[in-house]
Amino acid sequence: MTTHKATLISIIAEKLIHDGVTRILKNAGATGYSFFEGAGKGGHGLHPAHRPSIVDDFAIVKTEVVVKDRRVAEKIAAEIAEAYFAKYSGIIYMDEVDVLRPEKF
Amino acid sequence: MTTHKATLISIIAEKLIHDGVTRILKNAGATGYSFFEGAGKGGHGLHPAHRPSIVDDFAIVKTEVVVKDRRVAEKIAAEIAEAYFAKYSGIIYMDEVDVLRPEKF
Amino acid sequence: MTTHKATLISIIAEKLIHDGVTRILKNAGATGYSFFEGAGKGGHGLHPAHRPSIVDDFAIVKTEVVVKDRRVAEKIAAEIAEAYFAKYSGIIYMDEVDVLRPEKF
Repeated sequence: MTTHKATLISIIAEKLIHDGVTRILKNAGATGYSFFEGAGKGGHGLHPAHRPSIVDDFAIVKTEVVVKDRRVAEKIAAEIAEAYFAKYSGIIYMDEVDVLRPEKF
Repeated sequence: MTTHKATLISIIAEKLIHDGVTRILKNAGATGYSFFEGAGKGGHGLHPAHRPSIVDDFAIVKTEVVVKDRRVAEKIAAEIAEAYFAKYSGIIYMDEVDVLRPEKF
Repeated sequence: MTTHKATLISIIAEKLIHDGVTRILKNAGATGYSFFEGAGKGGHGLHPAHRPSIVDDFAIVKTEVVVKDRRVAEKIAAEIAEAYFAKYSGIIYMDEVDVLRPEKF
């Protein structure tokens, strides 16, 4: 079986910016994404001076998107970080994965 | 500490095929798996001509399984894709990870 | 854009040991973590002789933490495995990922 390299972007962020995150994904041409609700604790770039009440424990959404082109992935990640992560808690990580059908991404 | 290479298979698929996916995992000899409910949006290989009502937003399950042998992982991934992803929305990606105790997989 | 290597630790474990897992993370200096509730089936190192009732299907929590230093990641993984996985069901895997801002981890 032939597999193909792609980049998985995982965005873990406060729930309240989820709509903004997915807007960036759509504008960047992502053909689909998935998301999962969870909880987060601690830092993740939180700025406690501005929003102290959520330091301890807060609702998060993990959004995942697979893109074929690594440079597109980096562009999406940078755009989300710039738009939100100065003010809101969250992290983004990218990971090279293998997919079966590259035409889907 | 010694770590060992293994392959993580992530299957993100419409909820209604979850039972079928896990049947394939069991038949392939996977010793255990985990799954998480979430939501998906957009493509992911969706065939809107056949099932237009779920294009926008649909319940998904992410199933994760770690297998020691990369070729077994590829075989499982191919089998699931063949069985379901011509008709149903979903993606599969594989990722090399490090595990502590290879005898568990 | 510059990205930086980091290690993602994923701990998939029975819900009842989640507090213990996060205590280890905090003691190890992790600045933040995320967790997601799900379900697990089958082995994952379960010891059916001791706890037969949960062999089939059980509540799990997936905890994720990103750490900059691979050796710290391995130390955390080993500590959790030693503390819990002789008695409780669970797996840990580590994965090298790319992050945008290394100062956050």
